[in-house]
Parts: sequence; structure tokens; C-alpha cells
Amino acid sequence: MQPMTDRPAAAVLLSGGLDSTTVLAIARSEGLECHCLTVDYGQRHRIELDAARRVAAAFGAASHRIVALDLRAIGGSALTADIAVPKERELDRREVPVTYVPARNTVLLALLLGLAEVVGAEELFIGANAVDYSGYPDCRPAFLAAFERLAAVATVAGTEHGARYRVRAPLLELGKADIIRRGLALGVDYGLTWSCYDPGPDGLACGRCDSCRLRRRGFAEAGARDPLPQARG
Amino acid sequence: MQPMTDRPAAAVLLSGGLDSTTVLAIARSEGLECHCLTVDYGQRHRIELDAARRVAAAFGAASHRIVALDLRAIGGSALTADIAVPKERELDRREVPVTYVPARNTVLLALLLGLAEVVGAEELFIGANAVDYSGYPDCRPAFLAAFERLAAVATVAGTEHGARYRVRAPLLELGKADIIRRGLALGVDYGLTWSCYDPGPDGLACGRCDSCRLRRRGFAEAGARDPLPQARG
Repeated sequence: MQPMTDRPAAAVLLSGGLDSTTVLAIARSEGLECHCLTVDYGQRHRIELDAARRVAAAFGAASHRIVALDLRAIGGSALTADIAVPKERELDRREVPVTYVPARNTVLLALLLGLAEVVGAEELFIGANAVDYSGYPDCRPAFLAAFERLAAVATVAGTEHGARYRVRAPLLELGKADIIRRGLALGVDYGLTWSCYDPGPDGLACGRCDSCRLRRRGFAEAGARDPLPQARG
Repeated sequence: MQPMTDRPAAAVLLSGGLDSTTVLAIARSEGLECHCLTVDYGQRHRIELDAARRVAAAFGAASHRIVALDLRAIGGSALTADIAVPKERELDRREVPVTYVPARNTVLLALLLGLAEVVGAEELFIGANAVDYSGYPDCRPAFLAAFERLAAVATVAGTEHGARYRVRAPLLELGKADIIRRGLALGVDYGLTWSCYDPGPDGLACGRCDSCRLRRRGFAEAGARDPLPQARG
């Protein structure tokens, strides 16, 4: 199928978090027409989906699709099953955290590839990061390269129309502070984003889960103020 | 994670159709503990899901999960979008039919890999077929091999526990009649299955869509009677 405009198109995974928002900003800064995909995989909170909608609108995405996929039926993660989200644990552990979702990035990239084929995009953007998520196998360069090789033989566009899919993970080697600096330089308003795994009834980020703590530390190291308030830990 | 029993385990994609039911019969005949996955990707009819439930129960599956994934949000196929299902067209066309779902088998295998990791299965069974579906890029051996290479680096089990995922597509080179013969030899009751893309209000298979016609021709060539009635074309 054909792109909707003459501009090269990208398919961008957008969770509404800090990383994927920065990725969208990078894709837009390259002049790409961005088709965003948010996968609602049974997260406990809808705040993240609302953030994705705000971010897609703010960046002038060519389209934004939200696909519902209930990974709770498969289970295996604190983010999709009835396993407690850990609080106050040591960051920087190298083991796989319980928030790991089985085959998560494989599933997300598969859906993104389907979208790319439909909208005629050849660039697949994902906020995979090998620094903060070193324990996740599907955040490593070898995984992303293997997916690119799969994409080359998986689709009609790839095999009949010569589409060459590229998996782009521009944050792969960046720490959180570097990601934030990069986004701020591109004018990202991080007040639109959402990171917390476990917000309180007051709607505030908890300030204690891994995601909140990584975010707080990232802003501190970047010497910037987070426009999004967190509950005091 | 570990298998629930000492028997080797398999994760089996089960649509409730003729092919995937035969695949489940083959996996069971190898003595594998079978964990079935049915993906409800916005099909127009629930009859197929009911068939999957019947088949999983009939074959004593160790578990059966139905995962809802609304691919209509991505679109691009007569099976998931508002595109008419073709009737009475010439079979054996080599082009990609409008019933092609973008990146379908990539998405299905990704979900199956997630299940395999959760239940401790290393064999991934899929009813991909390169004979009747020669126009689908994601039914070819090169695609299945590329997915196997991806799986090797995509999961915790693969990278830390030495799990070696194998993609098994036992129907890959079989025509429909051969598939039916194979299933009948294994005692499959094809009356439990469902194939039609477009059943009538009477609940009967239409007898005219590609899937009905392939099925009818397969039973005829196998010299067997289909226990499931079709409307007269």
C-alpha cells in the first residue's frame, strides 16, 4: 500500500511515557509523517492512554491508533497480572524485573509492522532502551536486528513492493538524563507524558515505583524540573 | 518458568478451523502437553471461537486461553475491516487475497511466544500452509525460520534458561486433502471445527467463500464426508 502523502512515513510506538514521547519528537524532527500506535495491553490505569492521546495530538501525528490487546489472558507480569508492583527496591539490578511482560516488544513490534504495512511506512520507531532496561532481553540490539530481518520476509510490502523496514531505536544507548536532555532540546513538554506504574487515588504519580524513581533521577541528573508532580515518597 | 508437568509442553495456535485442529491433533499425538492460544482478532463471527473451545476440550488441552486483540483498529483486511469477503472467485490465484491480515502470523507467533515463555513450552505449533496460502508471505518457510531466530533472542527463557524455541508448522507442505487425511487418521472429528468466513443467519457455513470451497474440495479429494453441513452454493 502507499503512503498517504509524499513525505516518508514512520510507524511509532507511543505509550504516552517519557521515552516514547521523546522518540516521537525525534521522528518528527526528521520530517517524517508519523503514524502512532498505542497498545492497550491491559494496563491497570487509563492515565497512560490519555497521555498518549495528548502527546500524539501535540506532535501533529498523521494518525493515532489505540489497539486493545488483553495480555492479562497470558499473564506473567506485574503489569498485566495480579502480581504486586515492587516499590522502593534497589534500582540498577541486572535481573529481569517482575514488570517484564513476556514477549512484549515482539508483540508490540509485530503490531507496529502491521500498521506500517497498512500506512506505507518503512521506519518502525520504538523506545527500547538498553541502559535502564538491561534485564529485558527484548530491549537489546540483537533482538531489534532479528526483528528487522523477520520484517523483511513477513509482509507483502516487504516481499512484493520492495519495502525495506528499518527498526529505529534512537534511545537504545541513552540514559534517562540524556533522553530528557534530547527531548527538551526538541521542545518536548514532559508535562503531557505519564510514567508511574501505580498512581494513587489522588491521580498523582506514586513517586516510589521503578518508573517514577527513574524519571525523578533522570530529571535531577539532567538538571531540569519535571513539570509532572509526583507524590512525596 | 517451568512446565507444569514433566511432559514436554507445546504452545499451539488454535483458531478452531480445520488446519489448526489438525495441528493440535498432531501435537497431542507426539505426547506433548498442549497449551492452546486462540486470538480473537475482531473476527466477524463468534462461531469460530466456540469451535476453538470445543476442539481444545475434545483434545484434552492442558490450558486454553483466548486473547482479545482488536486488529480492526489497524485495518487492511476483509477479515478485520469493512471490505467485502469475496465469493465465487477463482481459487488458486497466486496474488495476495483481500483476506490477508497485515503481519498476522507475526502477531500470532509473538503472542504464542509470550504464552510459551509463561507455561514453559519450547515447541510453537502453527497451522501455516504454503500450498493453499501461497500468496501470504507469512506462511512461507523463510518467515517461520526468521521467527525462530527472533525467538532465540527475544525472551528471558531463551537467553537465561537455555530454552530453544522451535516453530513447528506440520501442515506447511500439505494440500487440504492431505491435511484432512492426516487428521482423520488421528481421529479428528471435523464436525467440531469451523471454516466459513461468512456464515448465513441460519448459522450454516455459506458454501461460497474461499474457505468453504477449499474445505469442500479437500474433503472431496480425500474421499471423505464433511460432518459439518454447508449451505448449497
